[in-house]
Amino acid sequence: MEQTLILVHCTDAVGLVSSIAHVVAKYGLNITTMREYVDESTKRFFSRIVCMGKAVDPEKLMQELLMILPKGASVKVNPPKQKRLAILVTKEPHCLGDTLVRYFFNTLGADVCCVIGNYDHLRSFTERFNVPYHFVSHEGKTKDEFEKELHKTIYSYSPDYVVLAKFMRILSPVFIAHYQGKIINIHHSFLPAFIGANPYQQAYTRGVKIIGATAHFVTDDLDEGPIIAQDVKPVNHTYTADDMRKAGKEIEKAVLSKALSLIIEDRVFVTGNKTVVFE
Amino acid sequence: MEQTLILVHCTDAVGLVSSIAHVVAKYGLNITTMREYVDESTKRFFSRIVCMGKAVDPEKLMQELLMILPKGASVKVNPPKQKRLAILVTKEPHCLGDTLVRYFFNTLGADVCCVIGNYDHLRSFTERFNVPYHFVSHEGKTKDEFEKELHKTIYSYSPDYVVLAKFMRILSPVFIAHYQGKIINIHHSFLPAFIGANPYQQAYTRGVKIIGATAHFVTDDLDEGPIIAQDVKPVNHTYTADDMRKAGKEIEKAVLSKALSLIIEDRVFVTGNKTVVFE
Amino acid sequence: MEQTLILVHCTDAVGLVSSIAHVVAKYGLNITTMREYVDESTKRFFSRIVCMGKAVDPEKLMQELLMILPKGASVKVNPPKQKRLAILVTKEPHCLGDTLVRYFFNTLGADVCCVIGNYDHLRSFTERFNVPYHFVSHEGKTKDEFEKELHKTIYSYSPDYVVLAKFMRILSPVFIAHYQGKIINIHHSFLPAFIGANPYQQAYTRGVKIIGATAHFVTDDLDEGPIIAQDVKPVNHTYTADDMRKAGKEIEKAVLSKALSLIIEDRVFVTGNKTVVFE
Amino acid sequence: MEQTLILVHCTDAVGLVSSIAHVVAKYGLNITTMREYVDESTKRFFSRIVCMGKAVDPEKLMQELLMILPKGASVKVNPPKQKRLAILVTKEPHCLGDTLVRYFFNTLGADVCCVIGNYDHLRSFTERFNVPYHFVSHEGKTKDEFEKELHKTIYSYSPDYVVLAKFMRILSPVFIAHYQGKIINIHHSFLPAFIGANPYQQAYTRGVKIIGATAHFVTDDLDEGPIIAQDVKPVNHTYTADDMRKAGKEIEKAVLSKALSLIIEDRVFVTGNKTVVFE
Repeated sequence: MEQTLILVHCTDAVGLVSSIAHVVAKYGLNITTMREYVDESTKRFFSRIVCMGKAVDPEKLMQELLMILPKGASVKVNPPKQKRLAILVTKEPHCLGDTLVRYFFNTLGADVCCVIGNYDHLRSFTERFNVPYHFVSHEGKTKDEFEKELHKTIYSYSPDYVVLAKFMRILSPVFIAHYQGKIINIHHSFLPAFIGANPYQQAYTRGVKIIGATAHFVTDDLDEGPIIAQDVKPVNHTYTADDMRKAGKEIEKAVLSKALSLIIEDRVFVTGNKTVVFE
Repeated sequence: MEQTLILVHCTDAVGLVSSIAHVVAKYGLNITTMREYVDESTKRFFSRIVCMGKAVDPEKLMQELLMILPKGASVKVNPPKQKRLAILVTKEPHCLGDTLVRYFFNTLGADVCCVIGNYDHLRSFTERFNVPYHFVSHEGKTKDEFEKELHKTIYSYSPDYVVLAKFMRILSPVFIAHYQGKIINIHHSFLPAFIGANPYQQAYTRGVKIIGATAHFVTDDLDEGPIIAQDVKPVNHTYTADDMRKAGKEIEKAVLSKALSLIIEDRVFVTGNKTVVFE
Repeated sequence: MEQTLILVHCTDAVGLVSSIAHVVAKYGLNITTMREYVDESTKRFFSRIVCMGKAVDPEKLMQELLMILPKGASVKVNPPKQKRLAILVTKEPHCLGDTLVRYFFNTLGADVCCVIGNYDHLRSFTERFNVPYHFVSHEGKTKDEFEKELHKTIYSYSPDYVVLAKFMRILSPVFIAHYQGKIINIHHSFLPAFIGANPYQQAYTRGVKIIGATAHFVTDDLDEGPIIAQDVKPVNHTYTADDMRKAGKEIEKAVLSKALSLIIEDRVFVTGNKTVVFE
Repeated sequence: MEQTLILVHCTDAVGLVSSIAHVVAKYGLNITTMREYVDESTKRFFSRIVCMGKAVDPEKLMQELLMILPKGASVKVNPPKQKRLAILVTKEPHCLGDTLVRYFFNTLGADVCCVIGNYDHLRSFTERFNVPYHFVSHEGKTKDEFEKELHKTIYSYSPDYVVLAKFMRILSPVFIAHYQGKIINIHHSFLPAFIGANPYQQAYTRGVKIIGATAHFVTDDLDEGPIIAQDVKPVNHTYTADDMRKAGKEIEKAVLSKALSLIIEDRVFVTGNKTVVFE
């Protein structure tokens, strides 16, 4: 008995589930968990189907599904399980540390193909896990030069996703265009509260009782891309801005880890500026 | 455009989703949200399907679905929306209060057809909402006599569900058999911790840092029926047993309300001693 | 054995705890829980002291404490336990309902002296609890006229606090000045996210994965007063703006209830635009 | 300006706060945060006092405090900040990984002096952080022999605390007596639910909707020592026992980290079989 995973998104139409399930049944596959959602506002159909049965030819099944689906449909059958991640960092280690430890013990469910820092601070830590570290400084370079070098380094690893694990440089639309829908950022606030710089100072000044973090896809609009996961933590009046920053790191770590796990397990679809997450 | 809700549970088989979706498509219905789950350990199939389209004859659709499903399948099409609840209480008002306020303002999604108390304490409150209150005392009666009277009173309202909203008498298997799968209890602890009496005193003595509550279906085994919903709340060393009891009431209220809402929206299936909840 | 509660806030100075505790000990009182906090940024000292011992003359103890504290200190000894609340509403019943039920069953810890609505919708509900309801319409009046009438009605009850339980009119600085530090609002978002109107629509559009609510004191700046309590709840892609609104009501109810309970138990101090909450 | 931290626990008596604060004021120290709690059931007094001022002689201040406190009082002034931890493991890496990464980046607030495993699995990982790893097998040894070797190894490092980071051997009262109040365990369930072996299988079988983890001090009674911290996470019907185990690891990691942080910051006192935690 093998597991087959099918991912579909396309324009909505009457009978889609029937058509898809018909094809799946023809292959002798038993659907064990099916998630399906129609975004009524955009008339888009999303489905994640887990089947059990004998192994199938994924390419063949995909082609057959494409034939019965509306034009322009996207279908994946058994997408690569061990996705490749390029991780971008600046100086803060908590998100990188958590990800590399999971990678080391095979609980990440993905490969970390490289770590790239605009400082050299995290090299020693990274290399302890036998992961290549590249120091691509932004200093003395135009944004364009910096991003070209960054892109070249990332490109050489052809990663499935680029993870901004507390990477503190704002990326240009030109750069982002190279990795459409593939850049994941961890933002140090409960978006859309405290957009922009120094959110913990802002949270402290406002006297909030809860702080949070947000993992999202990166689009041209800073901090405005589709949200994948969020979480929060209570704070109180005794917290200084620094205490909030410290507590915030725990949430950032947990939220990025959650978002990566959802993406690695192919549970996330993007629709407009939102996500559909089949948890 | 009407919404049609379809609920199916049956023995699992290859092609069930396909067969069901085929029938649904024949009726011109568009599936907007489909939830499906196979319990591998019991080989049972569960599905909750929300469709949009022109109004259908529910009886006809149900019969057609039964024909294509394995023998013994259970199918509901557009189950009654406004379910009828009989609420059993003792003296504590918090769960009853919350439920009656929702009922009064039409946000419960169900009718409270009666409140029955083994004390008369909550009559005045209940009657303010024009809901009939029955005082069925257990005093001076055998358990059997008491339960017969209880049953007679409940039966006269033919409710869909019997809600034990802090009803503090243990019910016998004979009584429970009358309402198989229809009795919902709110238990004042995070089951299976602190089974039995006085859980807040137990929690206090143990020095726990979190307390909780559990809503579950009632079966013959006290506190052992299928769990519908649970929630928790942090406590600390300054909490006396009474403080925990007070904090616990907030959780009990919230958890019962959550469980009722899931049941009223037909999101809960029972499988063995567990629930499948399509949230 | 009686409990004595002492509340102090004043300019910070070396030896304050010693001086206060010295006076308390002179009265033969045993401190069972002492909370103390110095806001370093404003150099303000806050303390909440629970003592056990024989009953004391609160006025005398207060005077003695004032003598040993820095000029301008605020001291309360055994502040009135049963505070009086005036509740302002518009049409939405959930926060009012929760508060009135607690009041009815003596679990609010305060008196609801009146409910005032700028619509008449919630009269019938309110009067079921024998609480006076006043309909003060804003229609056909200038803001000034409306607020004068509101003020006159509230004033006649001399409440300790004015609770905006989903009161949807913005109050002017003139009105607010009458009740400095005494107006509590429940805001339908996790401030400072989604300031202003229609936060659930905003939250839906942004595709957030968590929604929240905030209870705060009202100051001249809309939605900017000191935050008392906040809480959140997870949502997902299947939530419409209306579903978020519905889920939000549960949080609003819980957060307002939490804030009221903190205030009623004299656990909240205001410092600048923040609160010190001794939970 | 230096910070001075004072920890006191002793038999309760009238005037303790006054006496302590009087001594503190004599030293010219300003109390910025004082936490105080009296356990009424045991008549014990606990206090954690943070002061600012010029540096003091901790030994002298401690002696002066002991003189004014009831006989048998425990006083600490500026306890060692950089505590030493010995970590015991078996095969599971998640708690060790999290702790070592924090240690590596100086965010643990403590030293990891050694890691001891009853298997050799985690040696390579540990040594990457330049922390000594000792393989002390239990195989082919009596419990007594095994524990003697364990004790000898731990003893050579004279740690302040022994952390059982998923160490899966039950320790004897004899061993525990060597480290009274110094052994911290992370238990893989929300105690007291699912005491004993295989809690995730138990949780799965029971169909719970929330799972949890508990950090506690180890006493002679297995899983019954004073609880330091607990946390939980929602699960649902789609979780297998393995999925629960995986989700549980995230909670275990977070709860152990929380407990260690509380202990390292001297915020935890033990009273009977409970803890007082000044968060």
